Amino acid sequence: MEYASQTLENAIKAMSSLPSIGRKSALRLILHLVDDNSEKAQRIAASLLALKTDLKYCKHCYNFSDKDICNICEQPSRDTSTICVVESVRDLMAIEETNQYRGLYHVLGGVISPIDGIGPDQLHIAPLLDRLRQGQVSELIMAISPTIDGDTTIYYLTKQLADLDVKISTIARGVSFGGELEYADELTLGRSILSRTPYSVAQ
Amino acid sequence: MEYASQTLENAIKAMSSLPSIGRKSALRLILHLVDDNSEKAQRIAASLLALKTDLKYCKHCYNFSDKDICNICEQPSRDTSTICVVESVRDLMAIEETNQYRGLYHVLGGVISPIDGIGPDQLHIAPLLDRLRQGQVSELIMAISPTIDGDTTIYYLTKQLADLDVKISTIARGVSFGGELEYADELTLGRSILSRTPYSVAQ
Repeated sequence: MEYASQTLENAIKAMSSLPSIGRKSALRLILHLVDDNSEKAQRIAASLLALKTDLKYCKHCYNFSDKDICNICEQPSRDTSTICVVESVRDLMAIEETNQYRGLYHVLGGVISPIDGIGPDQLHIAPLLDRLRQGQVSELIMAISPTIDGDTTIYYLTKQLADLDVKISTIARGVSFGGELEYADELTLGRSILSRTPYSVAQ
Repeated sequence: MEYASQTLENAIKAMSSLPSIGRKSALRLILHLVDDNSEKAQRIAASLLALKTDLKYCKHCYNFSDKDICNICEQPSRDTSTICVVESVRDLMAIEETNQYRGLYHVLGGVISPIDGIGPDQLHIAPLLDRLRQGQVSELIMAISPTIDGDTTIYYLTKQLADLDVKISTIARGVSFGGELEYADELTLGRSILSRTPYSVAQ
């Protein structure tokens, strides 16, 4: 774009380096910011810089936090006897949005993946074992994606916890609520028959 | 989101203030930047701040520029006898992308719109008249959207230029190339019949 200014070109390039934002979308966003008379561009810039300087990981559960201990670990109303193990903060957020879980979390930071060269040492598994050894936790819920790597990670964790008195469960897998059976994939449908649950009227 | 950090929340809010970026998309973009180990967030922040400090308007044509005079006005190969009048830099860019025009531009910064309270004084009309009075320009191409406000603006400009020896033309309006007649809107199709052009084999 020989007709455009270098400043504009830099901003378009930087913006289009984000996932799912192409050059045309980036141009539209940047022109919006140029036309904008409020401090929007400055606010966005400041908030992005703060991500790299102010955002920390919780020392207990590795959730994002502004302080050493995150908002969830700090809440006195939380059930400290249950820890839900998740791959990423994204998954933690998704579970929190459901408002169905009042225990604590532990973010692994990924799953064991030999192909990608990710072993147990690259994940926050050792700190999880430390938490469990303190003896306050009675149940560990594995909320990990049902993939080969996810299952490997659950298997590895279970082995590590063999000598601890902690109940281990996984989140239920089956046909979605509101989903039609004929559109469910074979594996999910097959598994959901194998792991059928007793029917009760109150449910 | 009581579970998230304020730093993260601020970044999500700032990002989702952009058009067509909702809260979920903003979250995805921000988490991408948090995970990113390169200096992407810093680069985006710096380029956005530069928009507000380094981006200028060309003193001649009001295109975006890093210097007083923009890349287009500076190019010696440009035909200085023709000026294409556009509403916005977006339209200038669209025309430049076609590689069909080698003259200069003049960005009005909008169109006359009594409903929105935009009169000729809020647009860059006076500087355009100054450019034309210098006598080097022989043709003015009105590349302005075919709306009521756009037509009003063209009419106003034509009146202002009545005493100057400048040929005024508008870009051709009609059925799109490759477009099927039955899908063209009635107004466009009707006008394209009224303003039919002589057919020549060379065309």
